[in-house]
Amino acid sequence: MGASGTPARSLGLVETQRVVLFTEDNPLVLDSGETLAPVEVAYETYGERTASDDNVVVICHALTGDANAAGHHGDPTHPGWWDTLIGPGKPVDTDRLFVVSSNLLGGCQGTTGPSSINPATGTPYGLQFPLFTVSDLVKVQRALLAHLGITHVLAAVGGSLGGMQVLQWALDYPDEVEHGIVVCATARLSAQNIAFSAVARAAIMNDPDFADGNYYATGKGPDHGLSVARMMAHITYLSEESMRQKFGRRIQDREEPRFDLGVDFQVESYLQHQGKVFLDRFDANSYLYLTRVMDYFDLFADAELVRSQLAKVKTKFLVLSFDTDWRFDTSHSRGIVRTLTAHRVPVTFREISSPHGHDSFLLEVPEYHKTVAAYLDRALEETN
Amino acid sequence: MGASGTPARSLGLVETQRVVLFTEDNPLVLDSGETLAPVEVAYETYGERTASDDNVVVICHALTGDANAAGHHGDPTHPGWWDTLIGPGKPVDTDRLFVVSSNLLGGCQGTTGPSSINPATGTPYGLQFPLFTVSDLVKVQRALLAHLGITHVLAAVGGSLGGMQVLQWALDYPDEVEHGIVVCATARLSAQNIAFSAVARAAIMNDPDFADGNYYATGKGPDHGLSVARMMAHITYLSEESMRQKFGRRIQDREEPRFDLGVDFQVESYLQHQGKVFLDRFDANSYLYLTRVMDYFDLFADAELVRSQLAKVKTKFLVLSFDTDWRFDTSHSRGIVRTLTAHRVPVTFREISSPHGHDSFLLEVPEYHKTVAAYLDRALEETN
Repeated sequence: MGASGTPARSLGLVETQRVVLFTEDNPLVLDSGETLAPVEVAYETYGERTASDDNVVVICHALTGDANAAGHHGDPTHPGWWDTLIGPGKPVDTDRLFVVSSNLLGGCQGTTGPSSINPATGTPYGLQFPLFTVSDLVKVQRALLAHLGITHVLAAVGGSLGGMQVLQWALDYPDEVEHGIVVCATARLSAQNIAFSAVARAAIMNDPDFADGNYYATGKGPDHGLSVARMMAHITYLSEESMRQKFGRRIQDREEPRFDLGVDFQVESYLQHQGKVFLDRFDANSYLYLTRVMDYFDLFADAELVRSQLAKVKTKFLVLSFDTDWRFDTSHSRGIVRTLTAHRVPVTFREISSPHGHDSFLLEVPEYHKTVAAYLDRALEETN
Repeated sequence: MGASGTPARSLGLVETQRVVLFTEDNPLVLDSGETLAPVEVAYETYGERTASDDNVVVICHALTGDANAAGHHGDPTHPGWWDTLIGPGKPVDTDRLFVVSSNLLGGCQGTTGPSSINPATGTPYGLQFPLFTVSDLVKVQRALLAHLGITHVLAAVGGSLGGMQVLQWALDYPDEVEHGIVVCATARLSAQNIAFSAVARAAIMNDPDFADGNYYATGKGPDHGLSVARMMAHITYLSEESMRQKFGRRIQDREEPRFDLGVDFQVESYLQHQGKVFLDRFDANSYLYLTRVMDYFDLFADAELVRSQLAKVKTKFLVLSFDTDWRFDTSHSRGIVRTLTAHRVPVTFREISSPHGHDSFLLEVPEYHKTVAAYLDRALEETN
C-alpha cells in the first residue's frame, strides 16, 4: 500500500522534454564568474499541479542519474532510477504531488554538458566546459522551475549528490524550499571520498583514448578507464555484507574455479558487467566534472557565512542515512544535522538499518520508504 | 630499547644473493601439476646461525615486497620494507636470530616470475607463466631453506599475503615451523576483497599497452593501468581516519583550491606519486599473478581436510590484527583464530589499536612491536 492508502502503481510511459533555459543574451553566470550559453535542460514531470502550486516536489539526481526518475520510456522492465520511490501511491505520491525531475548541468542525458557543442568552436566542449559548483546546479534547477512558472517548492528531494543540491538550495535561497529531504549525503567529502574520486579520474584521464577530453570525433572514447572507474565506484556503493550475501566467493556459471586470470568469481563478473553497460549511457567528461563538483563541495566551510545563511533558512529538513553505507556513512549525515541544529534549523534525522550500503537510497527499504512517505504526508497536511 | 635490552640499531648495508633452486632435472612441481624450471630465488640473510640451527626466522613478504626486508642497499634513507621490525635489538632481533628473507615466486625482484625468460621460447613468460598457489610459494620458501641446510624453523613471520604463507606452511608441513606469526592476514578473501583485486586487474589488463602480457619487448608497459591499480590499493591500505589526519581536505602546495580537474588536494598528489613510483619497481604481470594467488586462497574450505591437517600441526601461532584495518579487518583474524582453536592449535590473538589501517604492519606501532618482541623472546627461551 502506498502513502495515500492506495496500492502503489507505476507511472507507466513518461516522456523527457527539453527546454533552453539560458541563451547568449541571458547566459548562466557560474560561481566562477564564467558564463555559459546556451543551456538546454532535459526534464520530466509527473502528477498534476494544484491551482495554488503548493504540491511541487523537485527531484535532484546523484552522480550518474538522469531526468527519467520514474515511469519508463517504453520498456516497463527498465523503469526510471527512482521508480521505487516515486509514483502513484508511492512515498513521493504522484497522485497528490507534482514532481519535477531534470538532468543535471554537466550531465550527458539531454542537459548541456561537456559533450554538448561549444558554440564558439562548433565542436563538443570537452575540457573547455567550465568548472561549476553545486550552487550552479541549483541555479539551473531554479531556472527550470521559473520556466514552468513555479516559485515555491514543497519539497526538494535528493540522495548523495542530490542531497548536496538540496542543502545548497536552502542556503542559497532560504525562502524557496519548504522541506528538504537529504538522503545519504554529505556537507563535505572526506579525504578517502576524494581519494576514490581521484583514482576514478586518473583511470579516465590516463586512458590514451581520452585524448585530453577531445575523444568525441575520434570514434573511440576512454572506455577502459571509464569502465574501471565505474567498477571501483560500485564497490563503494555496496556494503561489504551485501557483497558477501550477493556474491560471496561463488564462481560464475560453474561450481569449480577456472584458476585463471580472467573473470571467474561472480563478483568479478558483476563488476565487469556494470563497467561495460555504463559505457552506453555515460560520458567520461561528465563523470570527471560531476565527481569534481562533489570534491570541491564544502557547504559549511566558512563559519561566519554559514551563520548568516542559516539564520535566514526557512527550509525544514529530513536527513536520512543508512547504517551500512560507507560511501557517505552516518557520520556525514550527523555532521549535517549537528550544524543545522546548532543554527536552529528544524531537522528530523534518522539512521535507517539496511544491508545494502550507499545503494540503499535507490532500493525499496521499507523503513526508509515509510519515513519519507510519512514526512511528505505531514508536509502536505501542513500546507492544506 | 630493543627486545634484548640493547638500543635498536640498523643492520646497515646488506646484500641480495641469488640461487637457482629448481632446474630442468628437478623442476618445481606446482599445485596445478604443471612444472616450472629454472626457478631462481633472490634472498637475504641477517644475523648469525647457531650451531644447532635453533634460531631461524623466515620472513614471508606481502603482495609487493621483496627480499630486502631490513638493512639497506647503499642508501640508509631507503631501508628494507620491514626495517622497523627487523634488526639488532628490534622485535625480530638479529643479534639473536638468523633471519631469511626471499622474494616470492612470481615476483619481479630477482625471483623467477612472469618477467623472467621462458626457456621454451627465449622470451619473457608473460601470461604463459603458470598460475600458482600459496602452497607453491611455501614450496619455494622451503627449497631455499634446504639449500641453506636448514630443516627446522623457529618462526615464520608474515603480514597480509605473508601471513597467508605462514598459515599454509603449518598446514602443509606440520612439523617444520615452531611458531607462526600471522599479522593482518586472512584465511579467505571476502567478496569485497576480491572486488578490489578484480578492478586492479581490469585496470592493468584493459590498458592497451598491456598487449596480452607481452609488453616486455614493446618498450612500454601498461603503466597507466598499473598506476591506477596501485593508487586504488593504497586507499585500502590506509584507514579513513589516517587519511583524514594525513591529508584532510588540504590543497597541495597552496592555501586556496585551483578549481580544476587536475591534482589539487594533497590526497590526490599523494596517490599520484604512489602510483608513479610503483612503476619503477614492479611488474604488471607479477601484480596480476600475486593478487590472483590471494583471491583463490581458501585455507579452511574443505572441513574434512582441515580437520586431518590441523590434527597434525605442531606450530603455535601469534595472530595479530589492527583495529582500523579494513583491507583485512579483525573479523578475518578472528576467523583464523576460531578455526585453529576449534582444532586445539595453540593461538595467542591480539587486536592492536593503531590509526594506520592495514599499513600498520609495516609501521612502528609500539604495542604491536612489543607483542612480537615478547613472543619471540619467549620462543627463544623455550628453545634454549
